[in-house]
Amino acid sequence: MNIAILGFGTVGTGVYDIIKKGNTTHTQNLTVSHIFVRETRTKDLPEMTANIDDILLNDDVDVVVEVMGGIEPAHDYILKALQNGKHVVSANKAVIAKYMDEFVKTAQDNNVDFYFESSVAGGIPWIKNLERSLRIDNVSSISGIFNGTSNFILDQMKKTGQPFADILKEAQDLGYAEADPSADIDGYDIENKLCISFNLAYNTSIKPSAELPCFGIRNITDQDINYFNELGLIVKLMGKSRRAQNEFDYVIEPTLYNPSQVESSINDNFNYASLNGDTIGELGFMGQGAGKFPTANAVVQDILDIVDQTPRVIPAEKSTLKLNTNLSLTDYLVRTSADLSQYVNSSQIKAVNNIYSLVESMPAGKMHQAMAQLLKEDNQAFMVNIAANDKERVL
Amino acid sequence: MNIAILGFGTVGTGVYDIIKKGNTTHTQNLTVSHIFVRETRTKDLPEMTANIDDILLNDDVDVVVEVMGGIEPAHDYILKALQNGKHVVSANKAVIAKYMDEFVKTAQDNNVDFYFESSVAGGIPWIKNLERSLRIDNVSSISGIFNGTSNFILDQMKKTGQPFADILKEAQDLGYAEADPSADIDGYDIENKLCISFNLAYNTSIKPSAELPCFGIRNITDQDINYFNELGLIVKLMGKSRRAQNEFDYVIEPTLYNPSQVESSINDNFNYASLNGDTIGELGFMGQGAGKFPTANAVVQDILDIVDQTPRVIPAEKSTLKLNTNLSLTDYLVRTSADLSQYVNSSQIKAVNNIYSLVESMPAGKMHQAMAQLLKEDNQAFMVNIAANDKERVL
Repeated sequence: MNIAILGFGTVGTGVYDIIKKGNTTHTQNLTVSHIFVRETRTKDLPEMTANIDDILLNDDVDVVVEVMGGIEPAHDYILKALQNGKHVVSANKAVIAKYMDEFVKTAQDNNVDFYFESSVAGGIPWIKNLERSLRIDNVSSISGIFNGTSNFILDQMKKTGQPFADILKEAQDLGYAEADPSADIDGYDIENKLCISFNLAYNTSIKPSAELPCFGIRNITDQDINYFNELGLIVKLMGKSRRAQNEFDYVIEPTLYNPSQVESSINDNFNYASLNGDTIGELGFMGQGAGKFPTANAVVQDILDIVDQTPRVIPAEKSTLKLNTNLSLTDYLVRTSADLSQYVNSSQIKAVNNIYSLVESMPAGKMHQAMAQLLKEDNQAFMVNIAANDKERVL
Repeated sequence: MNIAILGFGTVGTGVYDIIKKGNTTHTQNLTVSHIFVRETRTKDLPEMTANIDDILLNDDVDVVVEVMGGIEPAHDYILKALQNGKHVVSANKAVIAKYMDEFVKTAQDNNVDFYFESSVAGGIPWIKNLERSLRIDNVSSISGIFNGTSNFILDQMKKTGQPFADILKEAQDLGYAEADPSADIDGYDIENKLCISFNLAYNTSIKPSAELPCFGIRNITDQDINYFNELGLIVKLMGKSRRAQNEFDYVIEPTLYNPSQVESSINDNFNYASLNGDTIGELGFMGQGAGKFPTANAVVQDILDIVDQTPRVIPAEKSTLKLNTNLSLTDYLVRTSADLSQYVNSSQIKAVNNIYSLVESMPAGKMHQAMAQLLKEDNQAFMVNIAANDKERVL
């Protein structure tokens, strides 16, 4: 099985290393025949080329591993590889969230496979197990910690009591966070992962968009963390969805958990993803959501599934499930110096203390719209979702 | 695909229900053609028979699902089914732990599959994901909460502060614990599950035996739980193994976790199993370890893998890894009214308070032997493993 790797950054190098090491009989049967890099790097390894046609037009290449990132030319290369009868494995969540249907259809039309385990939750076999669950069950909810950087920041703030800015700096120094940390701390990194997960789970075609409720942790303070500690609660940045009849919701937001919930003890930069199915009940997966070898492991798992010709779970027709961001009523703790009653019906507001208010029975979509307005007046405002059975800790 | 179910108790009924309901295109292609029951029940359903040869000698039966439990005749029926060219799916941990090698070899000799996902951790896809991990990695450790009943008891004791006996009674009333609770509370239920997991992970052939260190929760008191609470630690009954060079260890024992560890928040009767692999790092799975539909779901997943002809990860040769129960040095908290220094070298003992002592740097095998001796003098004694970095909480 000849494999071409497009892009030779962290994940590409990891895939190359795992295959070169050939630790098991399975990985020993794999060969990296080509590595697509920039012109300046082509001398580094004999497999390297800067000419994409050496790969896409080469009949000896069986699998194309796309780990370049970005939308174009990744989108173009994936399509051409599939059209030329090559299986494709991609770790590129942005291009998959945007073009998933096109890739899946092109793969089917050309009798090849399109795999993307590593695009969501890194090394965690989330996509595989979600697809396997769907062989038997309808999935009624999905929830998870899908961003390791924000989880590291929240966990470190809790452990050290230090301010957000200091911990963000530490995360940047450790290479966990980018120089521009926005995608991680504002929740947008999670958006692609949720679209991919929900489209599989519900057989829909939602795409990342500004309409989807997404509130990050940019405004969280050490005082917030301290207050949550006093309540005996732990805050996590979650991606969540629940299905009810013919609708499902979607939200990315900070959420409080009590210590008896698994989410509360997912520490450092780990990820956690869980689903609820008709017969399996709650099923959760914990592991490394990023990093060279865990992510490369997920890529190689996909390659081995291609070798094994493992059948996929891809239904022919899309479901009629509709996205409704106001499907579920939940409760929020809000910290703002502004007058909250300008943005939320006062009958739903309960003052908790001088700093925090509880907003009750709010649909996520409406709450996020209210916060977007409120942030224009108070750009330091923060909100966090709180479960009904933890409300008594607040009041 | 014609399926015969041997045994029509909780799990057998669940398998039947999932297939009859046919919720997905995958399950719709399955048919339960036979159900093997006692003579007195054969009139309940048209598929029922009390004559095992109707199944084992029937060329129309493709898959035999063995959910009878017990060693014989389950062992005999599984072997005959495999010899007659039928795939076998079993949920019966006792017979698998004892005869795993024989079943695997007989299946290979007859070109059929032998699957047993549901035998360990119920609905959690632990076996599948462990096998998949082994396609790429060596597994260097395994650890888990493999018994839901004992986890329910420990969790309820923590939540309510009530004594062991009261909570055990509650678990029995709920149907979580048997009238004779020994297998669950003394840890022996976990033994079969560990042997199956470790033999897969390390490619060995260990079998349940009295030589394997196994200490349960029969002697835990509400005062113990209260003391652990004061320490900020949570006790779980764990099955654990670590591999080092050409050896691996094995232990079943109560173990203390701090709130930042996932194990601490696995509540109710949930199970949790985790592994550590070369490239994947730590990978954990949380879900229902028992119950009608979760366990039946795992059985049906196996059947669907047979339908899909998913290749297995079963190496031809056994590894040379050796079991060494004294491989790792760890620390224990011990509660006893006896003189601990009669059983453990006094230089390793530190008095913690009037009730508990810390035993430091003890290999599990030796510690369990010492406790077995000590229990003859003080049959209420209790011990719990404590991690090195939690010791400062005690001293």
